[in-house]
Amino acid sequence: MASHPVVAIVGATGAVGVELLHCLERRNFPLSRLKLLASARSAGKTMRFKGQDLTIEALEEASFEGVDLALFSAGSGISKRFAAAAVKAGAVVVDNSSAFRMDAEVPLVVPEVNGAAMAGHRGIVANPNCVAAIATMALAPLQARHAIRRLHAATYQAASGAGAAAMEELRQSTAAALRGEAFEPKVLPHPYAFNLFSHNAEMDPVTGYNGEELKVVAETRRIMGMPELPIGITCIRVPVLRAHAMALTVEFEEPVTPEQARAAFENAPGVKLVDDRERNYFPMPSDASGQDDVLVGRIRADLGDPSGRSVALFVVGDQLLKGAALNAVQIAEALLRR
Amino acid sequence: MASHPVVAIVGATGAVGVELLHCLERRNFPLSRLKLLASARSAGKTMRFKGQDLTIEALEEASFEGVDLALFSAGSGISKRFAAAAVKAGAVVVDNSSAFRMDAEVPLVVPEVNGAAMAGHRGIVANPNCVAAIATMALAPLQARHAIRRLHAATYQAASGAGAAAMEELRQSTAAALRGEAFEPKVLPHPYAFNLFSHNAEMDPVTGYNGEELKVVAETRRIMGMPELPIGITCIRVPVLRAHAMALTVEFEEPVTPEQARAAFENAPGVKLVDDRERNYFPMPSDASGQDDVLVGRIRADLGDPSGRSVALFVVGDQLLKGAALNAVQIAEALLRR
Repeated sequence: MASHPVVAIVGATGAVGVELLHCLERRNFPLSRLKLLASARSAGKTMRFKGQDLTIEALEEASFEGVDLALFSAGSGISKRFAAAAVKAGAVVVDNSSAFRMDAEVPLVVPEVNGAAMAGHRGIVANPNCVAAIATMALAPLQARHAIRRLHAATYQAASGAGAAAMEELRQSTAAALRGEAFEPKVLPHPYAFNLFSHNAEMDPVTGYNGEELKVVAETRRIMGMPELPIGITCIRVPVLRAHAMALTVEFEEPVTPEQARAAFENAPGVKLVDDRERNYFPMPSDASGQDDVLVGRIRADLGDPSGRSVALFVVGDQLLKGAALNAVQIAEALLRR
Repeated sequence: MASHPVVAIVGATGAVGVELLHCLERRNFPLSRLKLLASARSAGKTMRFKGQDLTIEALEEASFEGVDLALFSAGSGISKRFAAAAVKAGAVVVDNSSAFRMDAEVPLVVPEVNGAAMAGHRGIVANPNCVAAIATMALAPLQARHAIRRLHAATYQAASGAGAAAMEELRQSTAAALRGEAFEPKVLPHPYAFNLFSHNAEMDPVTGYNGEELKVVAETRRIMGMPELPIGITCIRVPVLRAHAMALTVEFEEPVTPEQARAAFENAPGVKLVDDRERNYFPMPSDASGQDDVLVGRIRADLGDPSGRSVALFVVGDQLLKGAALNAVQIAEALLRR
């Protein structure tokens, strides 16, 4: 790839698109030109980048001419429809949708975890599901030292995973609740103000798992290179704006102490230990929001496993950053270094 | 006990106290007189009960003269200080605090689960921790048919568990956040608006478990009569007002199918199955709030246990009702029937 590529953001006006723009700017990504693509509805509007107003263009197949790197974040329908055109035009696609994540020819990458997987890409690199990205940031440093045998996860997922409109619905429905007024949900299927609900992704009626849970299982296994890892999971949407939290219980092949687990995180890139028992201070969405690092804490022996093989921890990461835009830009940076 | 006892509520003005009064009224508890006791600060104020204004009296040792049944809900300090006086005056105490829950001479009771344990009481019956009460309502029907070997729980706990002031802080801090204003938490140690945090109970620096988690483990074991049951647990406070949710993974001695687990709940008293995969409709705090029943759903095989021995479920119950006031009044009703 050119050392100063022409970059396109597909879906520039979405919650992730806005963060992609911010990440490129604050990380001083060495692009020669930035092209903002979105639906015809947004065409002609402008967005600010490095002190300039960039005009949004309507996405079409011809949009990718001259583009070296295309960051897609407009849903899997758009990715399926336009990624091939981008690749054909000579761009490398970093795709934030689920369209290609389980395609054997498309690497699924968290750079700190499995960056080497990018080597064989054929024009598309997939950016993982937000929970999978954040969870694997916590799992990989452990797996590097102690073989993982099993995982249990319960998530506390923010509105941002359902997009900017869901974040706004959380705000508006909460304001209505505080005024004592009724509110009819439009974006999400359930009341969100001071409420929580099983993740709204489509439910598989046979297994009773929703699409989010099945994605997290499949993608976590793929990113970790552990295709058989048993993963028990419950995905819950909570009334938080933009950081996902998760209670993880990791079972290892051999006994592992909390101290050993904690040591694994001490120099882990992109991970910040927030594990202060004295002050009762642990990872929180309010601290993770707007932060690149994934916060890891509450590291302790699992009381549910008297064999000493299991460690419990609590992990929080910004859904829009490490769960989406930041990871995509980190993939792009790695592609550039190759 | 007299068939129409004189009943006292200790801590009548608290979040649970108010619900105790409501439960006695709507369940038409056959009391001959209701006495409201609270701190000197509240003395002289009135509360409405069955169309009458009852005047709150300041709690003192002499308050229990003539009282047959004293429902305590004013924290464990008050219970430790005044329960003996109530018993000495001839009252039976139903104590909602943690003061006596692990006292071998005090039964710890969820009537649907271990009502028979009340038989040996010596004047005090303890009402469990809210998570333990709600969780055991879901565990007992399972255990009645299939031996449980292990439990994992991640909780999503409401503000009400920290009292009426915490509920108000959630409302006020959220209103401030929506206005873009700063808010200094006074009741809880962390920002609560659109945030969540590890439960604020005192942390045990050695094990890394907080007091809430240790209570849930000890009390669940005691109520279930399974003193060795391994229970892995993470307790998290979420920005919900008054219903606790929990993701439970139950491991059995033998394989159990989701259908077998579901069947166990079909006639379980106090439990309502909310498990509609077609509509993606499962237990939510907004549905559980103000309801007596504990909602159970998302019953499915645990993907984390390929042996088929584990079932995952999602459970929600009103923290102030089955988690506190309702259970206390149900204990009182059972005492009356004896």
